Amino acid sequence: MSDELKKGLEGVLVAESALSDIDGDAGRLIYRGYSIEDLAREASYEEVLYLLWNGELPTREEFETFVETIQRERTVDDAVLDTLADLAEANEHPMAALRTGVSMLSADERESDANPTDLDAALRSGRRIVAKVPTLLAAYDRLRRGEEPVAPHDDLSYAGNFLYMLTGEEPTETAEETFDMALILHADHGLNASTFTSMVIASTQADLYSAVTGGIGALSGPLHGGANQDVMNTLLDIDDSEKNPLQWVKDTIDAGGRIPGWGHRVYNVTDPRANILRTKLEDLTESTGDDRWLEYTTAIEQYLVEEMGLPEKNIAPNVDYYSGSVYYKLGIPVDMYTAIFAMSRAGGWVGHVLEYREDNRLIRPRGRYIGHDEREYAPIDER
Amino acid sequence: MSDELKKGLEGVLVAESALSDIDGDAGRLIYRGYSIEDLAREASYEEVLYLLWNGELPTREEFETFVETIQRERTVDDAVLDTLADLAEANEHPMAALRTGVSMLSADERESDANPTDLDAALRSGRRIVAKVPTLLAAYDRLRRGEEPVAPHDDLSYAGNFLYMLTGEEPTETAEETFDMALILHADHGLNASTFTSMVIASTQADLYSAVTGGIGALSGPLHGGANQDVMNTLLDIDDSEKNPLQWVKDTIDAGGRIPGWGHRVYNVTDPRANILRTKLEDLTESTGDDRWLEYTTAIEQYLVEEMGLPEKNIAPNVDYYSGSVYYKLGIPVDMYTAIFAMSRAGGWVGHVLEYREDNRLIRPRGRYIGHDEREYAPIDER
Repeated sequence: MSDELKKGLEGVLVAESALSDIDGDAGRLIYRGYSIEDLAREASYEEVLYLLWNGELPTREEFETFVETIQRERTVDDAVLDTLADLAEANEHPMAALRTGVSMLSADERESDANPTDLDAALRSGRRIVAKVPTLLAAYDRLRRGEEPVAPHDDLSYAGNFLYMLTGEEPTETAEETFDMALILHADHGLNASTFTSMVIASTQADLYSAVTGGIGALSGPLHGGANQDVMNTLLDIDDSEKNPLQWVKDTIDAGGRIPGWGHRVYNVTDPRANILRTKLEDLTESTGDDRWLEYTTAIEQYLVEEMGLPEKNIAPNVDYYSGSVYYKLGIPVDMYTAIFAMSRAGGWVGHVLEYREDNRLIRPRGRYIGHDEREYAPIDER
Repeated sequence: MSDELKKGLEGVLVAESALSDIDGDAGRLIYRGYSIEDLAREASYEEVLYLLWNGELPTREEFETFVETIQRERTVDDAVLDTLADLAEANEHPMAALRTGVSMLSADERESDANPTDLDAALRSGRRIVAKVPTLLAAYDRLRRGEEPVAPHDDLSYAGNFLYMLTGEEPTETAEETFDMALILHADHGLNASTFTSMVIASTQADLYSAVTGGIGALSGPLHGGANQDVMNTLLDIDDSEKNPLQWVKDTIDAGGRIPGWGHRVYNVTDPRANILRTKLEDLTESTGDDRWLEYTTAIEQYLVEEMGLPEKNIAPNVDYYSGSVYYKLGIPVDMYTAIFAMSRAGGWVGHVLEYREDNRLIRPRGRYIGHDEREYAPIDER
């Protein structure tokens, strides 16, 4: 035992993992050996899920079976939709609605999958959750707009089906591909706070519903997944201000404001996911002709880098900095961005839980007691 | 950075805390300086909540204001009760129902308490959750028995009101005192897995609803809070077997079975809470004349200690070993025991979150990558 305080556990090695590796100095990210650039360009989100959960990319046959299984498991019970309708009426945030929705899914769990040490059963539970998250989210957004949920499409991809359930219309190829790529980029990222939360919960042999519900809770925090929504709101503020974007950034920073989407605990250079998303944003900008978001993000970057010299302080754009603009171009409501991050990352949470459970050990750190010395209790009227 | 793997984080100091201290060799537990024995004998659960959250025991006036506030906040919305009714119909486990119920409470949160860095607002959220947990649980148990929920009592104590809402009748003084004591014993216990889960979640500046929902998930695991239910089921198995209890224990262990309720990561001697609960069980046994559970727990202890010499291996009874029999004597359904643990520990979760937030730092450990080296992506039909 060491008496050194490891606040935030920065740099503390808590587990071995074969899922993803980050080189924060080189700006490299790999999932089980494959670069995030290759996966974003070549693979589908379902292939990435298969890779994360099984260790290897699927053959054509394995892929088709896997996709069909997930397609079959997309439907959610009416009781869950009723609860989502109540939450919509109360104007609940989509992340909180998703947290409740996933928590409710365990009521429908098969008896045969209840053994906490059965890893195959845990994988099945995890797969069912991941299959249903898009259905929960799309239904929630429709319910709060006063529209009926759209049932899952029989044969659209994971990404395409979500956009279909959200809008009621089959998405364009560009929209489906863009959204699929965004899901791939967010699927895993080492032992971030939400993944670690899922692992701590699962280390007690709690079920996958508890682990994923906890992950959603952790991801909802402004210091974690909440930032992509903040970036978009910043860009919308710039747009509303009708100021020169460079001037807006200067004024905001001079007034003590923070620019979200910059800096990351593990990257000292630009997050590789940010580079991929920036390229995608440039493509989308070209095809739509609306260059506002690209202009504003570029202005912020220019100001922060040229005027303030931020890269010298190891602060660079992270994945949240560009994802917001991309989602905005896809027509996704701004307050759903963090929930979309959760939709993708749920795959990583399930993968890490399954991996940790192979050689499970309860995660229980120590605290250093700095409280009052032992003292005598005085009855309430003698205080 | 150290390259030593800290699996399970055993012995790793992750935070400083003034809430509780455990001396695992001496078998001592204190909350903010007060011994668990004094608090169990002298205080009420509400006093302990006040102590954990505010640092000092309340004066009479502070206590009355605090109790009144909690009493006012006990009611839960009909939408939540409707969801609990759906879960009851699906035969959901009470811990899962509680996880969903607490998650839903955020829909009713005041707008003014949404600032994630406002600690007073966080305390108010935490207090509202703790006030409503007994209402959720009692309602859930009644709904699954086909009975209407009972509204909170205007002026019963936290413990007494729960028993009242569960049964519809005001509890006896003995029942109320016993249950209050059990709540005090479970209120806090250092950085156990569920408390740590709440802290990791809250370290992202996620709200208290997310933190407590995650804590419930972690506590539901068989390696954490799930054990008190397992102990009672073991005692019920002994009772059903009509065997001599000593023989039952011997046969079970010979057949490779495990006896739950023994051993604890941080105690090398008997858990002080177990001693307090054993005394309470002896009192209850004397007053009711039914000595079965005391007889069986004593037989197990005798076998494990005398035949197997367990104390030499630092394995001794923990808090779960006696709490089950005590709850059984209070007429609480066996599958509610872990949820009752959660009802009490929610106070500790809230306390630790508030304390950690005073000097918050995102909790994000590292993993050691042991996966595949970087490799080339092959299209699906070339695999």
